[in-house]
Amino acid sequence: MVSSTSSVVYAEAILEDAEEKGKGRSIRLSDIRDHGEGAERSWVIRGTSVYDITDWIPGHPGGEVILRAAGGSVDPYWKIFTIHEKQEVYDILEEYRIGTVDQRDLVDGQVPVDAVEDPFQNDPVRDIRLQVHSDRPCNAETPAPELSAFITPNAVFYVRNHLWVPEGDEESYCLVIDLGDGEEKVYTMKDLREKFDECKITATLHCSGNRRKHMTENSRATNGLQWDVGAIGNAEWAGPRLRDVLADAGLATGNPPNDAKHVQFVGAEAYGASIPIAKAVDPRGDVLLAYKMNGEQIPPDHGFPVRVVVPGHVAARSVKWVNKIVVADEESTSQWQRRDYKCFGPNEGANPDWDRARAIQELPVQSAITSVRDVSAHPTENDGNDSIAVEGYAFSGGGREIVRVDISVDDGRTWDQAELAESSESGSQHWSWKRWKYTAQKKNVGPQLLVKAVDEAYNTQPDSHEPTYNVRGNLAMAWHRLPYNSK
Amino acid sequence: MVSSTSSVVYAEAILEDAEEKGKGRSIRLSDIRDHGEGAERSWVIRGTSVYDITDWIPGHPGGEVILRAAGGSVDPYWKIFTIHEKQEVYDILEEYRIGTVDQRDLVDGQVPVDAVEDPFQNDPVRDIRLQVHSDRPCNAETPAPELSAFITPNAVFYVRNHLWVPEGDEESYCLVIDLGDGEEKVYTMKDLREKFDECKITATLHCSGNRRKHMTENSRATNGLQWDVGAIGNAEWAGPRLRDVLADAGLATGNPPNDAKHVQFVGAEAYGASIPIAKAVDPRGDVLLAYKMNGEQIPPDHGFPVRVVVPGHVAARSVKWVNKIVVADEESTSQWQRRDYKCFGPNEGANPDWDRARAIQELPVQSAITSVRDVSAHPTENDGNDSIAVEGYAFSGGGREIVRVDISVDDGRTWDQAELAESSESGSQHWSWKRWKYTAQKKNVGPQLLVKAVDEAYNTQPDSHEPTYNVRGNLAMAWHRLPYNSK
Repeated sequence: MVSSTSSVVYAEAILEDAEEKGKGRSIRLSDIRDHGEGAERSWVIRGTSVYDITDWIPGHPGGEVILRAAGGSVDPYWKIFTIHEKQEVYDILEEYRIGTVDQRDLVDGQVPVDAVEDPFQNDPVRDIRLQVHSDRPCNAETPAPELSAFITPNAVFYVRNHLWVPEGDEESYCLVIDLGDGEEKVYTMKDLREKFDECKITATLHCSGNRRKHMTENSRATNGLQWDVGAIGNAEWAGPRLRDVLADAGLATGNPPNDAKHVQFVGAEAYGASIPIAKAVDPRGDVLLAYKMNGEQIPPDHGFPVRVVVPGHVAARSVKWVNKIVVADEESTSQWQRRDYKCFGPNEGANPDWDRARAIQELPVQSAITSVRDVSAHPTENDGNDSIAVEGYAFSGGGREIVRVDISVDDGRTWDQAELAESSESGSQHWSWKRWKYTAQKKNVGPQLLVKAVDEAYNTQPDSHEPTYNVRGNLAMAWHRLPYNSK
Repeated sequence: MVSSTSSVVYAEAILEDAEEKGKGRSIRLSDIRDHGEGAERSWVIRGTSVYDITDWIPGHPGGEVILRAAGGSVDPYWKIFTIHEKQEVYDILEEYRIGTVDQRDLVDGQVPVDAVEDPFQNDPVRDIRLQVHSDRPCNAETPAPELSAFITPNAVFYVRNHLWVPEGDEESYCLVIDLGDGEEKVYTMKDLREKFDECKITATLHCSGNRRKHMTENSRATNGLQWDVGAIGNAEWAGPRLRDVLADAGLATGNPPNDAKHVQFVGAEAYGASIPIAKAVDPRGDVLLAYKMNGEQIPPDHGFPVRVVVPGHVAARSVKWVNKIVVADEESTSQWQRRDYKCFGPNEGANPDWDRARAIQELPVQSAITSVRDVSAHPTENDGNDSIAVEGYAFSGGGREIVRVDISVDDGRTWDQAELAESSESGSQHWSWKRWKYTAQKKNVGPQLLVKAVDEAYNTQPDSHEPTYNVRGNLAMAWHRLPYNSK
């Protein structure tokens, strides 16, 4: 309402008007500084406007990192966390406006701000093939052609960072384990490598926002990064089993105490999430504290030196750069656990009763087309006709194997089965996607290709996106419909 | 082709013609008797026609019980197993026709047949409220109004028998356990009661044919009993855990041998099925050898004296009247394991490659409406408007809890959430259905009511039946659409 270049007289007139509405008082910088980290109420400045964001903090997608800016200006942080520079964010902030910075504290009409340290300074250089959705934090998907193999190479594995990449090294790495008994156990990298059996599994990580773009395009607008089919990847992970480490720390993994219901993970950059303890201690659950990805040291973007891998669950629970594990009677209090990664009904809007929905853990059935090639000139891939080869993935959570992939080239009127590729997966259950392939004669192919999958519990995908629409655009699992241009 | 009342001359003319086609030779009864039980090829007579059914036996929905009739006439058996008396069965049999009974062996133009023992003579008298789909074997569903409570009373619990109810008593009951090591262990009823802890769970049994009627009506014709919403029920089951009994018999349940992949069950009437060993030995799997149902001795129709209860799996694996358990490297060879209870693609027809599909074990998400009541006159159940109260159930397999039930009264354009009832379920996971309720103002209700459910892995139901259509009509899990007449 008040621009920083307006004259004092004009501003005061406006302010009086605003004060009448109880929103626009003039506030001294010293008062604002008193509402910094640790204060009962948290205030921030943007431009010359002041906001009391206390009630917003639980909903902040970046969690309590927002407190870094409390007591001062968010502007230098938003120059770093550029994801904030959009109208949707401005609108949210505006709801919490309480006033403007007192004219007496402005220098050249602006709030004087200190430089802040760039937390992204350690972010690695990334493969140029990655399709970047946001730079800070880095969110980038694997381009479809790179999704064609059973194992996704580290360099093009999708990156889904909520904050920056924390600096880490093996020598100083410490993992703190708190069983809720008031005592903390500490494990070094050497402990993790030498005290426990190394377990190797292949597992698919699937971001809850994978295919969000399809939900937006086929249903309604969704909040969040508009991922296509590449917020998913499959890798071989190696490291000790979480259950072995918890048992070593003193947890009765065979029969955990009744008040231990969740295992919370905290990453070095402040991200947090949790899983049910039943998954953590299940001998067939295969939850790892992984230090290797595809036989190499885990790359910085994927959790170096140690990340959790919770196979069969949404990737948001596989906390990267993990340095603290807490066994507790409640879920992680992070908004990544309590808000972001939940689905609501198509009618529930942008501000639902957050506690009513369950945090996403095991994933439902998914499938997608990743490539369509003209194989008319490849005699081994067709039967003498002008044909296309369609390839893709199918995956289900909870270790449930994909048992069938159906393809339609005539808009769902008829279906046929894709050929499922043999794969060398490892693990106690089916943690990896299935690659599939289908060859169709061009003359039979209509304007779109459809794929849907079935898992071993005969769960299937919904036909369309609208019935599972949710404002956050989580779990866009409807049939993948890919337009096909026969020319 | 040849009726038993045709004249010899006419018949011979027809037979000559048929013989030319290699289908219609004249066969003596003594030859037919040589193709009885134990013979390399099995022949049966129906009327005066002769059939070589050898190749049909693996596909016979009643299993090898068909061999009782081999070497003679099926007619007296079909008078008992009246389920056969329909065109679809006649048509299948006709495919195996090899000739007719020699005129010299007919008496008054008919094949003389001996009386056969009626295996259904021990079948109990049933509650008249059950909705009978077939009498012999008994298949009867719970009428919708009786599905309204969390616990389904024994008297109206749906009955799904594949054969007759075998005679059983606790005194002579023996359970044979074969771990595949060539040795058999035998447990009496006293052993089961006294050597093991009694475990109590509530669990929903869901027939794979539940709601088949809806698939038929909304997609295409299906083979099998046309169940409505009542081939499902929820009960409290009690008995020893299967894993405890297997451990007592000598199986290393903590780490079963690699070649032990399945646990097969055989019922006293000849029914057979199996489950993966991982489910059988899972400490949180809760597979029971139940001798109590809702606090009472298990009724004869439900497995007296002992049945298997495999919670979270299709009811076809909860073998009734179980008297043999085999730990093996392969699934049960019964056609109930290898054929009947599988789903194929909508395109795969009546004679698919049976081995390509997985036997149904864990169930997908299901929901249905069981009652619609006008509550306009009940002030506690409405908000002063002319309203209806809609109630029903929702369920998912594998112990996955139902987390949301969506209702639409305007043909899916908008949705709202039903209220989930609190329930006193017991067991290591969520084995019981959720009851739900929704109140709608009559003026908002269109010509049909829709329900769909979501489980804790965010699996959902398919929008419509056609994409999951299969000839057998298994797992009709699409949204339930119930016509509503506002008058």
